[in-house]
Amino acid sequence: MKFIDKLLNASRKNKSWLCVGLDPDPELMPEVDVLQFNKAIIEVTHDLVCAYKPNLAFYEALGTEGLAILEKTVKYIPGDIPVIGDAKRGDIGNTAKAYARALFSILGFDAATVNPYLGFDSLEPFINYQDKGVFILCRTSNKGAADFQDLRAAGAPLYEAVARKAKEWNIYGNIGLVVGATYPEELKKVRSMCPEMPLLIPGIGAQGGDLASAVSYGVDARGDKAIINVSRQILYASKEKDFAQAARTMAEKIRNQINDYRHKAR
Amino acid sequence: MKFIDKLLNASRKNKSWLCVGLDPDPELMPEVDVLQFNKAIIEVTHDLVCAYKPNLAFYEALGTEGLAILEKTVKYIPGDIPVIGDAKRGDIGNTAKAYARALFSILGFDAATVNPYLGFDSLEPFINYQDKGVFILCRTSNKGAADFQDLRAAGAPLYEAVARKAKEWNIYGNIGLVVGATYPEELKKVRSMCPEMPLLIPGIGAQGGDLASAVSYGVDARGDKAIINVSRQILYASKEKDFAQAARTMAEKIRNQINDYRHKAR
Repeated sequence: MKFIDKLLNASRKNKSWLCVGLDPDPELMPEVDVLQFNKAIIEVTHDLVCAYKPNLAFYEALGTEGLAILEKTVKYIPGDIPVIGDAKRGDIGNTAKAYARALFSILGFDAATVNPYLGFDSLEPFINYQDKGVFILCRTSNKGAADFQDLRAAGAPLYEAVARKAKEWNIYGNIGLVVGATYPEELKKVRSMCPEMPLLIPGIGAQGGDLASAVSYGVDARGDKAIINVSRQILYASKEKDFAQAARTMAEKIRNQINDYRHKAR
Repeated sequence: MKFIDKLLNASRKNKSWLCVGLDPDPELMPEVDVLQFNKAIIEVTHDLVCAYKPNLAFYEALGTEGLAILEKTVKYIPGDIPVIGDAKRGDIGNTAKAYARALFSILGFDAATVNPYLGFDSLEPFINYQDKGVFILCRTSNKGAADFQDLRAAGAPLYEAVARKAKEWNIYGNIGLVVGATYPEELKKVRSMCPEMPLLIPGIGAQGGDLASAVSYGVDARGDKAIINVSRQILYASKEKDFAQAARTMAEKIRNQINDYRHKAR
C-alpha cells in the first residue's frame, strides 16, 4: 500500500491528524526502561494518532542498543499506523542509497524525513521507493531556520525554492514537506504552493507553535493532510507512574483540538 | 587535545593529507567479514593517512550490528589518527544535542560532518564540543549540489553564504568546511574566503574529481589543511584476496601525488 493511503486510512479510522513523536529522552523520562516506555505510550495512544514519528537521534544517543530498541519499537506499532522515521538524512547518491535502505528496508519505516541541501540526486534513492513517503525539510521549526531558509534566492526565500522543486520532483506522488508550526505565515505560503501534499508539522507545545494556526494553515482543501506532530508535551505529560495515562489524556485533548480547528478551517 | 592539533600531528607524522573513507559496501567488497575488511584496510594504511572517515550510512545499512562494527572499527584505529564521523546530521537544537552526544561521546569520533540547512542552533551543540572538529557541508561533490547550493542569495551563491556564516560561528576555532573536489572553482573561492580553515575534500576517484586542482586550490598558505578523502578507489582497488596490499599500493600512490601537488602549489 502507498504511504499516503496508509496515512489517510489511519487518520480516518482514528479521526486524527495527531502524530506522536517517539523521542525518548532519559533526562525527561520517568524512571523506566526505554522500550517499555515506548510500548506504554504506543499502547495508550494508538487509537488516537494518524502516525508515529521516532527521531533517530534519541536512539543513536543510547549507544548500540539504541537501534535495537528502535527496531523493536517500530515492530510494536500496529501495522495499520504509519511510522515516519525522522532521520533528516542527506548525502550523495551512492551513500543516500545506503541510508534509504537502512530506513526503509532494515528499520521498516513507512516514510522518512530528508534534508534537501544536497539536491535531487541525494533524495532520488528515497523517492524511488514509490510506496514510501519522503518528507523534505522545507521551513523548519527552530530559530536558526532563518539563517539560510529565509535567504532570498531568485526573488523568493530559499524554502520556497525547496517547495517548488519538491513539487517538480513529485512524479510518484510520494513527497511531502516539513514545515514548522512556529512559522504560520510560511506554513500558509507552502500550503498554497503545494495544495495536495501531506505536510509534516512539528513545533507544537515545547517549541511554542500555535495549534490553531498550524491546523488552519496546514490542512488541504478537504481539511486533511496536516500531520501535526507533538512529542514532549505528550510523552512527558507526567514524569510519575501515571505517565501513560497522562500521555493518553493529553493526546486525546490535542487530537480533539485539532479536529475542532479543522472544522473551523473549512 | 584539540582536533586541529591531532590532525596536524598525524599529517606531519605520516607526511600525508590523504584521508581514507571507510565505507564498506557489500556490493563492492571482497568476500570477507566487514569488520575484518576494515581492520585489514586500517592495518595497511594507518602510516599513510592524516585521518579516517567512516560514513555512517554504510553501517546503518548493515542493520543493528552495523553500529557495533562501526564502534569496533573506530576503536581499532590508532589513537593518534583522527577519525571523522561522516554523518551529515542536522536537526533542531534539542535533537542536535542527542546527535552530537551519539557521535562524539558514544561513537568517540574526533570530528563530524553536519548539514547547515537548519542554521546555527542546529550546529551549536556540535560546536560546543570545543575539542572536536565540526565540518559543515558547504559545496558538496555531487551533481545535485547545484540545485540549491548555487542559488544566488543576496548576490552570491548559497554555499558562499554558508562559508561566511561558518567563519562568523568559528569562535572556538573548531569549524571546517566540506567542499567537493569535483568543483575546483568553488573550492578555490571557499579557500580564499576561509584561508585558515581545514577543508574536507571528497570527490576524488570514483566521483571524478581532479586531484591536482583539489590539492592546489584546497591547501592553505602553508600547503596544509586540505583533507583529501578517497574511499572507493582505495578500498576496492582489488576485489580479490590481495585487496589489502592493493589498497596500500593505491593509498601510497595517492598520498605521494598529493605531496607532489602540494609542493607545486607553494
